[in-house]
Amino acid sequence: MCFRRYFAASLIVTAVPLYAQVPARHDSVARAMVRTALVQNRSIELLRDLCAIGPRFSGSEQYEKAAQWSKTTMERLGFDRVWLEPVMVPHWVRGDKEEAVVYPAKRRMLMPVSVAALGGSIATPKDGLMGEVVEVRSFEELRTLGAAAKGKIVFFNRPMDRAQINTFAAYGGAVDQRGRGAIEAARVGGIAAIVRSVTTRIDDVPHTGSVGYHDSIPKVPAAAISTRDADRLSELLKTEPGTKMRLTLNCETLPDAATWNVIGEIRGSELPNEVIVVGGHLDSWDKGDGAHDDGAGCVQSIEALRLLKELELKPKRTIRAVMFANEENGLRGGIAYAAVQRPGERHVAAIESDAGGFVPRGFGVGDSAAYVRIKTWEPLFAFMNADRIVRGGGGADISPLMRQGVPGIGLNVETQRYFDHHHSDNDTIDAVNERELALGAGAMAILAYLIAEEGL
Amino acid sequence: MCFRRYFAASLIVTAVPLYAQVPARHDSVARAMVRTALVQNRSIELLRDLCAIGPRFSGSEQYEKAAQWSKTTMERLGFDRVWLEPVMVPHWVRGDKEEAVVYPAKRRMLMPVSVAALGGSIATPKDGLMGEVVEVRSFEELRTLGAAAKGKIVFFNRPMDRAQINTFAAYGGAVDQRGRGAIEAARVGGIAAIVRSVTTRIDDVPHTGSVGYHDSIPKVPAAAISTRDADRLSELLKTEPGTKMRLTLNCETLPDAATWNVIGEIRGSELPNEVIVVGGHLDSWDKGDGAHDDGAGCVQSIEALRLLKELELKPKRTIRAVMFANEENGLRGGIAYAAVQRPGERHVAAIESDAGGFVPRGFGVGDSAAYVRIKTWEPLFAFMNADRIVRGGGGADISPLMRQGVPGIGLNVETQRYFDHHHSDNDTIDAVNERELALGAGAMAILAYLIAEEGL
Repeated sequence: MCFRRYFAASLIVTAVPLYAQVPARHDSVARAMVRTALVQNRSIELLRDLCAIGPRFSGSEQYEKAAQWSKTTMERLGFDRVWLEPVMVPHWVRGDKEEAVVYPAKRRMLMPVSVAALGGSIATPKDGLMGEVVEVRSFEELRTLGAAAKGKIVFFNRPMDRAQINTFAAYGGAVDQRGRGAIEAARVGGIAAIVRSVTTRIDDVPHTGSVGYHDSIPKVPAAAISTRDADRLSELLKTEPGTKMRLTLNCETLPDAATWNVIGEIRGSELPNEVIVVGGHLDSWDKGDGAHDDGAGCVQSIEALRLLKELELKPKRTIRAVMFANEENGLRGGIAYAAVQRPGERHVAAIESDAGGFVPRGFGVGDSAAYVRIKTWEPLFAFMNADRIVRGGGGADISPLMRQGVPGIGLNVETQRYFDHHHSDNDTIDAVNERELALGAGAMAILAYLIAEEGL
Repeated sequence: MCFRRYFAASLIVTAVPLYAQVPARHDSVARAMVRTALVQNRSIELLRDLCAIGPRFSGSEQYEKAAQWSKTTMERLGFDRVWLEPVMVPHWVRGDKEEAVVYPAKRRMLMPVSVAALGGSIATPKDGLMGEVVEVRSFEELRTLGAAAKGKIVFFNRPMDRAQINTFAAYGGAVDQRGRGAIEAARVGGIAAIVRSVTTRIDDVPHTGSVGYHDSIPKVPAAAISTRDADRLSELLKTEPGTKMRLTLNCETLPDAATWNVIGEIRGSELPNEVIVVGGHLDSWDKGDGAHDDGAGCVQSIEALRLLKELELKPKRTIRAVMFANEENGLRGGIAYAAVQRPGERHVAAIESDAGGFVPRGFGVGDSAAYVRIKTWEPLFAFMNADRIVRGGGGADISPLMRQGVPGIGLNVETQRYFDHHHSDNDTIDAVNERELALGAGAMAILAYLIAEEGL
């Protein structure tokens, strides 16, 4: 953007508050919420309890425990209504065998590789599959290779772009390899897809995530390897072309499983049928604790409602915490929530926290009119340095609501560390700072309260 | 602040850029600096090397190694001039014995406590000292106790205020207990000062720091205990008044030691005698690695100059990286640097990074005229979300320069996690995120370059 335009835009945007009508009492409420969140420090306590259950993958016993924990917790906190809503979710299990071994073309020494099947992947034959490895950095490069990739294991090795300030942008620029790698590999006759973990870190931990298949294209197994192993393998392929890999996975897809979205609410005192959703997804990958992704968003949603009760606030509209099922490999929870007929009820807005329990910087608003309105509330978030209200945002779980016209809003947090942890054994409770987590809960509570009081 | 005033202030401040004269080429330089910092990722490599030496306490062998490492590193990077300047520093050594054991008044079970002598403390008698513990939360409370504290160990237990958004404000509200606790304890006849660690975390790690003495008041030993032990001890004192503690420290103060500030610079192409300092302090406490405090600031200062060279920029004015000695327990490095006569030379500004290697949010400017000028450059930091230029700031090491009228500027970073690590065994390289560290280096490089090109 040229400077002249920057300056003009900056003036317009920041001049808005001058004309805004923000009742002054909201400022003291906002400060009280954040003070209470920091001092009582409940978010981290909730997250410790939740993470103690273990990873909460869709279809797992732990997910069921986490759903019960969420329900019991919200009941214990005295929310006005707490209930479960049924959802059918995909049920993929990793199995007990995942192994990748590189056979260098020249050297005799085998190189074991840190590997994790991608969620939804088919298994390999029982004794694994073996093939020459061919490295590509893009689907275009793979298509150029064409027949040369036939019968081979396709190794997608384009790193996240380190130069991006927002790591979500870098993630967006690399994750196609994980999501569509198996399809594109099979399209040229490849026998498996190996993907460089989509993380900013160079380490030994593989990061999983969903892989997609097309019904019209043969399914091939797909797995992520650690970034350090990806670099090693890439080096090896330069000096020893013809290097092979044996990949063994015994994951499998079981029939869909019955589970739940978990919901709790504080009823509006004047307009109880107008609802503001605050939510996150309760399921996680089957790695780590799912602390940042998205245990953080769940406990922040619960904490947002708890703060209202603690401060004895009676918002005009209903504020509802939703712990969505199955964001990671199906989005069935978000879809099911939006599909439920709720006669007489209207969703005013939906706010999601699903970018990790990091320090909040503001909100992204995925609706023009809502953006203009919420932008006028920026001053109310300035005291906590979370006053960057930007256009564009939302969340996966609330996207089905957004498609129905409900304004969706995402909590924007500092992104530098998220992908160090994302979808891996690194996503554990000890990587969450209690103050950063609590500030996010405070920001969610403030925005939900403002919308409940002022409407949108 | 009332809302009317907030809005008015916000309008004035953000309107400034409209009238600013910022050459557009600076924008591409700024982006290139940050891109290079992130992609080449040298800051963390430098910090790993530095931290591998071990803690760099004033007077220690490791400080000497760190000084040599800094010099060699800057020479290897091809800076125009690299040199050492002599400094005499205090030389306190912790000794091999620090022990605190609580003797409950009623129960028979002894309670060992995590303890660390405060820097500068005198030793206890060889077999320790034993005394009844009396808890206070403020110097006022201690003065009210008066004679009742005579002969006792005074336990200062006022926590950091969790409600503060900026943890430095919370630190400022608690650290008097550490700095003046021994003086105030001795003033009422206390025989030692025990201080609750000045940290946001509840854990088992004691956080050290300097203790002061007055020549006119008897010196008594002073030590920090972990926050968890402070809470335990406080509980115990409620139910078992008369509880005692045995404290054993064999720390000692040796004669002052000769050491160095380490300096490297890139000479200005047009005004080489006008100097912008970028710096941090090379000494650390004798706990952890001194990674955040202040290895981060040192490597960011080196990296700022390296980025200039890497991008083949020839700034008009000289940019000088200074690794100051002895910030932690004497400030002798900062004082010595400012005291050196440098004929013909003028310091235009000094920028310090000493708040940890966390994500940068902007700068604090401790000079009114400089603030007004630098504020107009905010748009140049917006792309990296580090555009909060605020009035007030600087750094301990550059404070002697500031007293000579040199505008001092501090890199402001996200503060939530800093005091988890500060002055303790928690301050290690693995607590530093490479991207956050690199972004800080980029911000330092941009501001130093802008001042070098535009003056102040």
